[in-house]
Amino acid sequence: MTAYPVLSDKHALEEGTVLAPRFDAGGLVTCVTTDAASGELLMVAHMNAEALQRSVETGEAWYWSRSRQELWHKGATSGQIQTIVEMRVDCDQDAIWLKVKVAGDGGCCHTGRHSCFYRVKPLREAAAAPLAFAAE
Amino acid sequence: MTAYPVLSDKHALEEGTVLAPRFDAGGLVTCVTTDAASGELLMVAHMNAEALQRSVETGEAWYWSRSRQELWHKGATSGQIQTIVEMRVDCDQDAIWLKVKVAGDGGCCHTGRHSCFYRVKPLREAAAAPLAFAAE
Repeated sequence: MTAYPVLSDKHALEEGTVLAPRFDAGGLVTCVTTDAASGELLMVAHMNAEALQRSVETGEAWYWSRSRQELWHKGATSGQIQTIVEMRVDCDQDAIWLKVKVAGDGGCCHTGRHSCFYRVKPLREAAAAPLAFAAE
Repeated sequence: MTAYPVLSDKHALEEGTVLAPRFDAGGLVTCVTTDAASGELLMVAHMNAEALQRSVETGEAWYWSRSRQELWHKGATSGQIQTIVEMRVDCDQDAIWLKVKVAGDGGCCHTGRHSCFYRVKPLREAAAAPLAFAAE
């Protein structure tokens, strides 16, 4: 596996064309995954260097499962393979954005829902109200 | 400040109506912020309990700046205040999603761009190609 470079120069990190992910102390970057067609936020997960490299090379989403402590080819067991339509990186290169097309039944969340973000938190004067389940 | 509850029961955490964020060892949860109108991913940041509570109570986005190690009322100096249109939490409650309307010039990224995710990483057979700047 090719190691990703480390850029200490802020301008190169933010304005350059070299992918130099800033992995945290645990060797991970945050990955935000949205539905390429609807734009809906599906999930937030993490990638280590190998998961990122496999995602780039295969065009399918690979993550690092923190709970299982193993590489995770999303959909390998569920059939909900995520084909990456576009990958982006943020300004300081500690977050990745995947726009994906989901195979199988189109789901993403292990609870069986389309997106992991199925509950709404009321705000302001309703701040004390409980979470509300959003319509699927 | 009211402390958020800790739920050790997986079913209560995932299917309940109690907001019980799973802060990491550093006391933070990941926050994904999208444009409420366009759906575009604007930024990924972090919240500690106080930033989350202020966001809920004021309806404006507050984060925890890891670089400055301080509470961060987004837009306080730039004018790019983020009014929260909807807040959601994910299945295992370690990530928050804000859909926001941005004030001021509508920008978000400290580099002056609308979104922090302005660079695209080529995939598959083009995997070795450099990052490409996306059109604004």
